[in-house]
Amino acid sequence: MCVLGNYGGDVMNFEMACEIVASEGIKTKTVIVADDIASAKEEEKLKRRGIAGMIFVFKIAGAIAETGASLDDTFKLASDANNNIRTLGVALSPCILPEAGKPTFEINDDEIEIGMGIHGEPGIKREKLRTANDLVDDLYKRIIDDSKLKANDNVAIMINSLGATPLEELYIISKRVNENLSKSNIQNSKTYVGRYATSMEMAGMSITTLKLNDNLKKYLFAESTCPFWNN
Amino acid sequence: MCVLGNYGGDVMNFEMACEIVASEGIKTKTVIVADDIASAKEEEKLKRRGIAGMIFVFKIAGAIAETGASLDDTFKLASDANNNIRTLGVALSPCILPEAGKPTFEINDDEIEIGMGIHGEPGIKREKLRTANDLVDDLYKRIIDDSKLKANDNVAIMINSLGATPLEELYIISKRVNENLSKSNIQNSKTYVGRYATSMEMAGMSITTLKLNDNLKKYLFAESTCPFWNN
Repeated sequence: MCVLGNYGGDVMNFEMACEIVASEGIKTKTVIVADDIASAKEEEKLKRRGIAGMIFVFKIAGAIAETGASLDDTFKLASDANNNIRTLGVALSPCILPEAGKPTFEINDDEIEIGMGIHGEPGIKREKLRTANDLVDDLYKRIIDDSKLKANDNVAIMINSLGATPLEELYIISKRVNENLSKSNIQNSKTYVGRYATSMEMAGMSITTLKLNDNLKKYLFAESTCPFWNN
Repeated sequence: MCVLGNYGGDVMNFEMACEIVASEGIKTKTVIVADDIASAKEEEKLKRRGIAGMIFVFKIAGAIAETGASLDDTFKLASDANNNIRTLGVALSPCILPEAGKPTFEINDDEIEIGMGIHGEPGIKREKLRTANDLVDDLYKRIIDDSKLKANDNVAIMINSLGATPLEELYIISKRVNENLSKSNIQNSKTYVGRYATSMEMAGMSITTLKLNDNLKKYLFAESTCPFWNN
């Protein structure tokens, strides 16, 4: 079972790996995670990049695979997770690759870019800094519009730091996201707050919604041991 | 019960607060954490700064206070923790305060400073970058020499990021620290790895040892709920 983010190089390499093991008689299935709503319209969902939502799919696919589930069942559940995920982020400062020593893009101190990718891919708009609440309300509306989440739906939320943004600030975001969810009457089973999908020391964060059903919930919440994942 | 790090401003403000509540008939006791072995010689331990080891003292003092223990018992245990803690760190890049926008100090890309404080206070030496293992061996030796830890002692360890240094790198440090502990026949009850005492986006880390006894162990490991502390 291959679960990867939707990036050219990753897709190419996973395809090659699958061909190699296929020649040895090993069957594979692939889920290409595409959760970044800023990177393509909903009609072209398959073109979207994979960002923080990938972590939810990794966890769920790993949890069901660990039970010895069939490849088909694992594939189906990972696909469901992928279909139910939406992420939108905002970047405040660039990533600097250690060897390169240069920022991957430039942005003024008083500017943010909504929807910027984790490798500095262009977002949907660059604008002046705003308050956290105002920004969250904007991102939330875009995610809800895209995901078609509605009253009484059940979700898990991830508030992800791109690296430099600390927990203290993520909890400000988390509070406002949860206020918005309450207003929409959407049930939130759990909020994950932390550094899950980072871009070195890039400042910024993303908000991910995962619409849950009983099966997704079971495997998302399955006990596991990993320093990068809090149960 | 006051537990604070050994910094002029903090000490002054806590003293004033204690005087104010004393005039209302409330008795206080104070533990000034001084764990940074780079900031003063062992003979002048009281002059040392408080860095990551503070978090261990906060946790232990909080846990015993929560049981309704007396002020004297809480003070005694917090003092024991403070006496049993040693920390030494290394900085690779400065902290930049958001409003100031300027680094708090300057250091070349290929340099590190051993023992630098979390506010950029000078350390014990500035030198060229070295491998993680080599650096850890050096820091470990200095901590062991200072703490007088010996075979069969029981400890808890904290590998703390100053902000920008990611978990992946902290685990490289953690591995080597644990190899050193094994060689010294020192029993490690638990390694805490993460961002506990940070300095905005400063790159670097610190290693803390806390020599445990049964009572310190009981309250360090007491169940608690806090986003910044993993049980």
